[in-house]
Amino acid sequence: MAGNTFGEVFKITTFGESHGAAVGVIVDGVTPNVEIDEAYIQKQMDRRKPGQSSVTSPRKEYDVVQIQSGIFEGKTTGTPLFVVLYNKDMKPEAYNDIQHSFRPGHADYTFLQKYGIRDHRGSGRASGRETAARVAGGAIARKLLERRGVEVLAYTQEVGGIKCQTFDEDVIEQNAVRACDAKAGAEMIKKIEHLASIGDSCGGIVECRIRGVIPGLGEPVFDKLDAELAKAMLSIGAVKGIEFGAGFEAASMLGSEHNDAMNKDGFLSNHSGGIIGGISTGEEIIFRISVKPTSSISVTQQTINTNGEEVEIKTEGRHDPCICPRIVPVVEAMACLVLEDLYKRQAAIFG
Amino acid sequence: MAGNTFGEVFKITTFGESHGAAVGVIVDGVTPNVEIDEAYIQKQMDRRKPGQSSVTSPRKEYDVVQIQSGIFEGKTTGTPLFVVLYNKDMKPEAYNDIQHSFRPGHADYTFLQKYGIRDHRGSGRASGRETAARVAGGAIARKLLERRGVEVLAYTQEVGGIKCQTFDEDVIEQNAVRACDAKAGAEMIKKIEHLASIGDSCGGIVECRIRGVIPGLGEPVFDKLDAELAKAMLSIGAVKGIEFGAGFEAASMLGSEHNDAMNKDGFLSNHSGGIIGGISTGEEIIFRISVKPTSSISVTQQTINTNGEEVEIKTEGRHDPCICPRIVPVVEAMACLVLEDLYKRQAAIFG
Amino acid sequence: MAGNTFGEVFKITTFGESHGAAVGVIVDGVTPNVEIDEAYIQKQMDRRKPGQSSVTSPRKEYDVVQIQSGIFEGKTTGTPLFVVLYNKDMKPEAYNDIQHSFRPGHADYTFLQKYGIRDHRGSGRASGRETAARVAGGAIARKLLERRGVEVLAYTQEVGGIKCQTFDEDVIEQNAVRACDAKAGAEMIKKIEHLASIGDSCGGIVECRIRGVIPGLGEPVFDKLDAELAKAMLSIGAVKGIEFGAGFEAASMLGSEHNDAMNKDGFLSNHSGGIIGGISTGEEIIFRISVKPTSSISVTQQTINTNGEEVEIKTEGRHDPCICPRIVPVVEAMACLVLEDLYKRQAAIFG
Amino acid sequence: MAGNTFGEVFKITTFGESHGAAVGVIVDGVTPNVEIDEAYIQKQMDRRKPGQSSVTSPRKEYDVVQIQSGIFEGKTTGTPLFVVLYNKDMKPEAYNDIQHSFRPGHADYTFLQKYGIRDHRGSGRASGRETAARVAGGAIARKLLERRGVEVLAYTQEVGGIKCQTFDEDVIEQNAVRACDAKAGAEMIKKIEHLASIGDSCGGIVECRIRGVIPGLGEPVFDKLDAELAKAMLSIGAVKGIEFGAGFEAASMLGSEHNDAMNKDGFLSNHSGGIIGGISTGEEIIFRISVKPTSSISVTQQTINTNGEEVEIKTEGRHDPCICPRIVPVVEAMACLVLEDLYKRQAAIFG
Repeated sequence: MAGNTFGEVFKITTFGESHGAAVGVIVDGVTPNVEIDEAYIQKQMDRRKPGQSSVTSPRKEYDVVQIQSGIFEGKTTGTPLFVVLYNKDMKPEAYNDIQHSFRPGHADYTFLQKYGIRDHRGSGRASGRETAARVAGGAIARKLLERRGVEVLAYTQEVGGIKCQTFDEDVIEQNAVRACDAKAGAEMIKKIEHLASIGDSCGGIVECRIRGVIPGLGEPVFDKLDAELAKAMLSIGAVKGIEFGAGFEAASMLGSEHNDAMNKDGFLSNHSGGIIGGISTGEEIIFRISVKPTSSISVTQQTINTNGEEVEIKTEGRHDPCICPRIVPVVEAMACLVLEDLYKRQAAIFG
Repeated sequence: MAGNTFGEVFKITTFGESHGAAVGVIVDGVTPNVEIDEAYIQKQMDRRKPGQSSVTSPRKEYDVVQIQSGIFEGKTTGTPLFVVLYNKDMKPEAYNDIQHSFRPGHADYTFLQKYGIRDHRGSGRASGRETAARVAGGAIARKLLERRGVEVLAYTQEVGGIKCQTFDEDVIEQNAVRACDAKAGAEMIKKIEHLASIGDSCGGIVECRIRGVIPGLGEPVFDKLDAELAKAMLSIGAVKGIEFGAGFEAASMLGSEHNDAMNKDGFLSNHSGGIIGGISTGEEIIFRISVKPTSSISVTQQTINTNGEEVEIKTEGRHDPCICPRIVPVVEAMACLVLEDLYKRQAAIFG
Repeated sequence: MAGNTFGEVFKITTFGESHGAAVGVIVDGVTPNVEIDEAYIQKQMDRRKPGQSSVTSPRKEYDVVQIQSGIFEGKTTGTPLFVVLYNKDMKPEAYNDIQHSFRPGHADYTFLQKYGIRDHRGSGRASGRETAARVAGGAIARKLLERRGVEVLAYTQEVGGIKCQTFDEDVIEQNAVRACDAKAGAEMIKKIEHLASIGDSCGGIVECRIRGVIPGLGEPVFDKLDAELAKAMLSIGAVKGIEFGAGFEAASMLGSEHNDAMNKDGFLSNHSGGIIGGISTGEEIIFRISVKPTSSISVTQQTINTNGEEVEIKTEGRHDPCICPRIVPVVEAMACLVLEDLYKRQAAIFG
Repeated sequence: MAGNTFGEVFKITTFGESHGAAVGVIVDGVTPNVEIDEAYIQKQMDRRKPGQSSVTSPRKEYDVVQIQSGIFEGKTTGTPLFVVLYNKDMKPEAYNDIQHSFRPGHADYTFLQKYGIRDHRGSGRASGRETAARVAGGAIARKLLERRGVEVLAYTQEVGGIKCQTFDEDVIEQNAVRACDAKAGAEMIKKIEHLASIGDSCGGIVECRIRGVIPGLGEPVFDKLDAELAKAMLSIGAVKGIEFGAGFEAASMLGSEHNDAMNKDGFLSNHSGGIIGGISTGEEIIFRISVKPTSSISVTQQTINTNGEEVEIKTEGRHDPCICPRIVPVVEAMACLVLEDLYKRQAAIFG
């Protein structure tokens, strides 16, 4: 109800504020007898952590994961896994100046309107720090999906108006923005560094490809595969849109162009993005999300304070000028959570 | 689990195939003591029904709603409402030729892959006919939202590449495509009639504006208002993408442009689309969806049959060359369901 | 939330008032490709219907089931089944005298307190008529359990202080009270007929045995097999208690007596009732429920009316002097729903 | 699905094994702006902890609670509370001898059958240690219920065949078995000490009274107040039965005896136990549970090992000879969880 649980069978419940003691996740519905260790999860955490490069925040969150239940002698037992990351390097006093003002683009105003109280320190629960728990839970889903032969791969497709022209899987983890085109990636980095130098930020587009999914995944009529992925992605703070396959292009196509014809080897095109009628076709699943520019900028902006008075604000601090490279592992994590859950839901109906 | 229920507090569960006896909906969690009658629901059904104009399917579904429980002396009792529409004008034999072939763009292939069996008659449960139950349930949500002063308005923004240039609320229900620009609407109708004459179809963009929502709606971190709306919209068969506020444009904006500044009268812009941090700001909520071209076309297409043999197919029958005008009331219905549910979820937490 | 849905994977949602147009059920999560027909469901409905014998209400509800979706050519398709029973033989005017008074033992007072409105005709949604939809849904679960080799058998164990002394499975459906001891059953019938003649009623105990369940069913820590069965049984209107295995006797046993020892052939006793730690052991599952005397009696009783004034009331009408024989199929239906759901939940976790 | 979450709006999700690093709970759906501190929770933990008296296990679990999220400046923020208890005084090697044998009455056998793997150390997740997380979550519900004027009071009513003859609220927390009759309590203690001396154990009956609940709580038809309480209580490991009001006595009463008549001051009796039609009447809610004798005894018992060979077993270690006094706070915690959740569900429907 309160929305801190995601999934139906393979289910995560998260907690934790940016400057609280810890962020963590209980993962329920985990297949028993599967080998999982902290190092496997840590690898995904390291892809999300700040301070990785010149284009990410210099904060050090020391995202060291600990598994505190659900594992016995290196294997899952079928009982809930608890994975926790204790917070360190917290500087709550750095946020004193924003305690009584609403930063534009931030959830300061809406959280206060909703709950009548807010933990302003580092945005509290509205902080991107919250996604660390998603990545931890998603790593466990990823482990289970590996056994099914499913691969989930996200990458930056566009930043600040600069688009990738090629798709080269091998370069993604080799450049600081996680672009799929090394040349475009280099330009993106320059652009981000420039924006950082003037205290501004920019958005971008992240694309995700999923391979190896059986045909048949997704639960019509409401819990379609694309519907579940859309919810998962829009639940990430900075995401403002999603499209599957031909996406918004489909709006100006003819039926005779858009329909994916088949021959005995399979589909002849993939305008559907691997999903028809809310069910996977067996083709590559492909979607793109729009990522808004980071709200925290040190440019002076106009806003109001909690007394309703007009004030100016300038968010100092250690922020990412472009969130795309760090959102990539979060997108993958959320996609893994959706897929593993739907595999188990499919098993339930036939079980 | 199987995905035929939508919502958590205000909750609908639907059933029904295109050529079965009926489609219907159980609506649970309805506020007691509210006046609701069949005429109110019927009005929404009539906006969705086929045969309204030259640009919709000539089928006659006789969508006459009946409320069979949950009402006593004209008022809701707090027990579940059951609303049913008996099917008529069914011609299942019209589908005999597609019984053993997979129509491109249709869910024929994926349903068979998923369930190992499929009701091919008029696409069975994958038919757009299923959305009639959503509109019936959504009408009840709309009634409850009226009492809150919330208005939900969807309309066609683009069809076959023709875009609306103005926004005139009054013309929407006056033109057959439900465009918000009468002149563009007239061009769209011509384009659709032409495509119909050559057996092809086209897609479009539907926009939705929601007014009167309190600030504070939406349940972070996973059940954000935009996440729930995205799921709702992508659960509609033909929808391939959604964007909120600046949407995909946000990807190429700077933070200093995108952030919505505030003064004492409120927000100075609405790039966020009325939602920040997954919670309503109190501004107009605005989103757009991409609608794919109707899959059913009478152009000859290449496909395979259930034996895996290559065949050609040409879908005859009574189909909509562009689904936008009839998807408009479905979009509104789904938005109403999301909003009424989130209002009740908000009440639960404080209750 | 509003409580008209039962189950997580195999899930029923019901609607309908005693004197409304119909009662019905949507069954979601049904295994595809299973043969089910109306006759199979009807057989269970006939065991629940009134007018079966001298000890049940003479009302005729004409419980004729119709399946209106989810079946294609005699087999389930994986889409929701809708099963409906249209109401007939309604005499709402028979309830005019109780419109403004609260019948002792009935939910008249509590429904009005809860919802602020009530459909008084035949108790509306609080009527035992509501259980018809459960029996319809339970019949579908029973069909699926047959394929697993699971049998669910309930019967009357005690009525009005008269206890069964033997357990003879073959006589259960041969006597009007569904007692497991023909001799005790004959005495029970006499007692019930006498109470009916003086306008009073009595309670009893119904026992249920479940055979053929695999070891391993049940979801600790909260959704234990006994916890789910307890909820299911207490959700039936007249039930006031439940006990498993040794039950309330366990309270006065020693650990050395109660613990079920094992040898290589299995358990040496079954004080646990086939459930340990909330998980099935593979032994027979056995529980008993306490059924209160029917509230509707024609003895004069003291009560108040909706104005808070003291009045006398005497409930005329067509009521069961003892509900045990008709509650037996409802107990079986609810047990089937719990079991099929837990089988599918077990499959989900490993799936 | 996997059953580690309880509640719908006010919802707890727990994790933790007896000899793992910690047990803990995420509490979601907490009313914002309520003062809660660790001391309030600790008080309930101390009532549950072992080592309180001569009749409880001498283990020291050091149940020191820490709240690690969801609180800001002493008040709830509406975001999830995380409450954790780190385990100490663990002696996993004490369980080496039972690693390969199934202790009679324990969940050793069923857990292995279900999951194919088990953490045998101190029963792993099947340990009573798991209920510490319930008491922590229940304390938060209790805090919210205090604001509503609701009181939940459980106590031992019977132990080893010795029954309380009086009900004296003031003595409950003054005697080591938490009996409501000081004299009976003293006899119970003697009996338990004797059984402990010979390595055996006994069961008992715990009763619970709930006062101050508004009329109208409970969600028919499936989520009735008594159905939800029954599930909650049967989800506690040692509980084998529950009865409300007249309970199993109702089975031998006449309708004219059992029906609770009313006059203008309210109900004239309370055979219903404060619940009619699954909804609270406003009277005291009263139920009793049957608690089985502790399974862990040092009497020699017959069992099998994981190879299916017959062996003898004798459970040494630090166990409670009667679990009643320590189950009392768990019963209260579960009742609080059910009530707070149903209050919020009621608010949702009208909200």
